[in-house]
Amino acid sequence: MKRIAVLGSTGSVGTQILQVAERHPERLQISALAAGRNLSLLIEQAKQFRPTRVSVARAADVERLQSALAGTGIRVLSGPEGLAELAAVDVDLVAGALVGSLGLEPVLAALRAGREVALANKEVLVMAGPLVLREARRSGGAILPLDSEHVAIHQALAGHPREALARVLLTASGGPFRTATAAEMARATPEQALAHPNWEMGPKITIDSATLMNKGLEAIEARWLFDLEPDRIGAVIHPESIIHSLVEFVDGSWLAQLGIPDMRIPIAYALGMPDRLPLPELKPLDLVEIGALHFEAPDAERFPAFRLALEANRIGGTAPAVLNAANEVAVQAFLDRRISFPGIPEAVEAVLASADFGPGVDLDEIREADRLGREAALRVIEDSACS
Amino acid sequence: MKRIAVLGSTGSVGTQILQVAERHPERLQISALAAGRNLSLLIEQAKQFRPTRVSVARAADVERLQSALAGTGIRVLSGPEGLAELAAVDVDLVAGALVGSLGLEPVLAALRAGREVALANKEVLVMAGPLVLREARRSGGAILPLDSEHVAIHQALAGHPREALARVLLTASGGPFRTATAAEMARATPEQALAHPNWEMGPKITIDSATLMNKGLEAIEARWLFDLEPDRIGAVIHPESIIHSLVEFVDGSWLAQLGIPDMRIPIAYALGMPDRLPLPELKPLDLVEIGALHFEAPDAERFPAFRLALEANRIGGTAPAVLNAANEVAVQAFLDRRISFPGIPEAVEAVLASADFGPGVDLDEIREADRLGREAALRVIEDSACS
Repeated sequence: MKRIAVLGSTGSVGTQILQVAERHPERLQISALAAGRNLSLLIEQAKQFRPTRVSVARAADVERLQSALAGTGIRVLSGPEGLAELAAVDVDLVAGALVGSLGLEPVLAALRAGREVALANKEVLVMAGPLVLREARRSGGAILPLDSEHVAIHQALAGHPREALARVLLTASGGPFRTATAAEMARATPEQALAHPNWEMGPKITIDSATLMNKGLEAIEARWLFDLEPDRIGAVIHPESIIHSLVEFVDGSWLAQLGIPDMRIPIAYALGMPDRLPLPELKPLDLVEIGALHFEAPDAERFPAFRLALEANRIGGTAPAVLNAANEVAVQAFLDRRISFPGIPEAVEAVLASADFGPGVDLDEIREADRLGREAALRVIEDSACS
Repeated sequence: MKRIAVLGSTGSVGTQILQVAERHPERLQISALAAGRNLSLLIEQAKQFRPTRVSVARAADVERLQSALAGTGIRVLSGPEGLAELAAVDVDLVAGALVGSLGLEPVLAALRAGREVALANKEVLVMAGPLVLREARRSGGAILPLDSEHVAIHQALAGHPREALARVLLTASGGPFRTATAAEMARATPEQALAHPNWEMGPKITIDSATLMNKGLEAIEARWLFDLEPDRIGAVIHPESIIHSLVEFVDGSWLAQLGIPDMRIPIAYALGMPDRLPLPELKPLDLVEIGALHFEAPDAERFPAFRLALEANRIGGTAPAVLNAANEVAVQAFLDRRISFPGIPEAVEAVLASADFGPGVDLDEIREADRLGREAALRVIEDSACS
C-alpha cells in the first residue's frame, strides 16, 4: 500500500489523482489532502478518502472544515505552515499538484523530510531547480515527474544507459492558435485562448499552452528532472497529442511514449511506480482510427515564449524564476483583458531584458527574484496600457 | 572487445553487420565468417577482418579459398559441418544472418555451445521455436533479436516489468502493393514485387514483405523471442517505416521505437548491447521533414498471408514449419514466374489445410514437416499450373 499526500487536491490534476486512487484502493491510500478555497470539494474528498490531515489556504476556513469533518478524526491545518506540515507527514509519496509558485515551499519541506515527490507543479523546478535538487540530494528525497511529457521521457529512458541518451524532444499540441495568423492572435480573447484542442487543464496552464510558454517551462523542468544540458532539450509540434515526448539515443534510435491524451495515464504511472496500474475504463489508443500523427516545427515568430524560456534555461540561476514570475503576471493580465495575447511574451521579454540574475541556490534569493519579476512585469504592463 | 561470428556474411544483413563492425573496431571483432557461394566477396571480407575461420557452402570451393587466403592463417571449412563447427567456436556473439531453413542447425549448434545468438534469420524461430528455446535454456545460450521490429520491441520492453506488457504491435510498410487493387496484384510481376518502398533487403524477404507473410513470420518469431501468447501480437500498416514496432502496457501507455529505415541501427543495437554504438554517418531522423506518420489496418482480403501465419502460430507445433516451407517454395515459384502473386498465399493455404501437425520439439520431426510442406507446395503449384 502506497500512502500519498496530495497537494492541490481540488485542482485539475489533483482531482484526477484521486480518480486514479479511487480506482486502485488496494494499492493507493490517500493520507493527506491540501487545497485552496474550494472547501465543499475538499470536504467531499476528505469524507471519501479519510486522510489523517487536510489543509486549506485560509485560517478563516478551518472552523467550517472542522465542523464538516467532526467525528472523523481528521486534523485540519491551514496556510503555508499547514501546507508545509502536511507535506512532511510520514507518507510514501507527495503529489505536488499546486499551481504556480505556491508549491515551492511545501515541496522543499517534503524533500527535507526525505519524501518522494511526484511533481505536476512545474513552477517548483522552473523557479528553484538547483535548490530543489540540492535538498533532494541532502535528504535522500527524490523528484519524480507527474505530467505527461516528463512521464513519457521517464518511461522512454527506463532501462537504457544514461550515456546512450543524445537528447529529448518534448511534444506540444500547438494549442488553439497553431494555425492562426499573427493578426488573429493579436485579437485573440481569453475564451479563445482557453479552448485547448486536446487536454482538459486549469486556466493558467491552458494559456501557457497557447503561447508555448508551457513547453518552455517543461524544457526547464526536464533539465532538472533528467539532469540534461539545456541544448539537449527540444520541442516539436504534434497536434494530435498522442506521442507525449520522445528521446533520441546516440545510435539514431528513438523511443516515444504514446497514449490517448488523458492525464490519468501519466498520473497512474507516477503513483504506481515501479508497477503499472491498469486503467481499463479509458478508451484504448487506436492508431488506425487516428490515421496519422503530424509533426511541425514550432513557429518562433508567432510563439516567442518558447525561445524566451530556452534563453532563461541557458542563462540559469534566477533567470527562469524571473521568467516564470513575469509570465504569471502577464497571463493574469491577459485573462483580465488588460493586455493582448501577444502582449504576454512581449511583457516577459521586456522583463528578462532589463533584469539582473543571481545564482539561484538560496530560497530568499529566489523569492526576491520572483518578487522583482512580478513587479517588473506589472510596470511593463502598466506602461503598455498607458502608451 | 566483443568477438563475433557472422553466419551469412555476404548477404544483405551480413554485409551491414560488417559495416557496423568496421565502424567500431574498438568494440567489435569479427572472429568467423560463413557464406554461401559468393566467394569473391567472402575472400575480400576475410582479408579485411582477418577472422580465425571462414566457411563456404560447397567443399569444391575450399581449395580456391585456401589459395586466396594463403599465409593469413585463416582456417577454411565447408558444408553444413563447417557451418556447425564455425557457429560453435569460442566467440561472444553469433550473428545468424543466413536465409531460410539453412540457418536452423548452425543456430542450434551455437546455442548448444552456450553462445548468445543475434538472429536475423527468422525461419529458425518460425520452424523450431520450442526446440530452439529448449536448447538455449539447457545450455545457458540466449537468443537476441537482430531485425528492426524485434529490436524495436526489445528496446521498448527494456526496464519495464514484464507483467506490465499488454501486447506488441508490429509495424509493416505494406510493401509495394499496399494501395494496389486485387486485379493489379493478380498481374504483378516479380520485378514489381521486388521494388520495396523503404528497405533494401534480399529477394525472399522482399517478396514476403509484399505478401505480408514477412509480418506473419515476425509474429511467430516474436512469440518465441518475447514469450508471448500468439493473440497478444498484432500488426499495423505504417507506410513510412519510421516506427519499427510498438508495445502497449496494461495502463494504456505505449512505447514505440523510431528511426530511419536503415538496418545498421538495429544491427548496432544487437551487436553493441548493453551499450549503444554511435552511428554518426547515418542521416538523422527528422520528424518535421517527414511531416506525418500514417497507420492503416492490414487488408485481410488482399493479404491473406498474414492471417495464415497467425493461424499457424495459434496451432503451434510443426504448423509454422509447414507454413514456412510452403511459403519458401511458393515464393520461388512466383520468382520463376510459375505462379501469380496471389498464388503464393493460395498455395500456402492449400498446404496448411491438408497437413497434419506434430508437437515440433524434435529436429527430425521439424525436418520432416519442412520436407512435407515443400512437397505439398510443389504438388499444389504443379496442379494449379496444369489446371
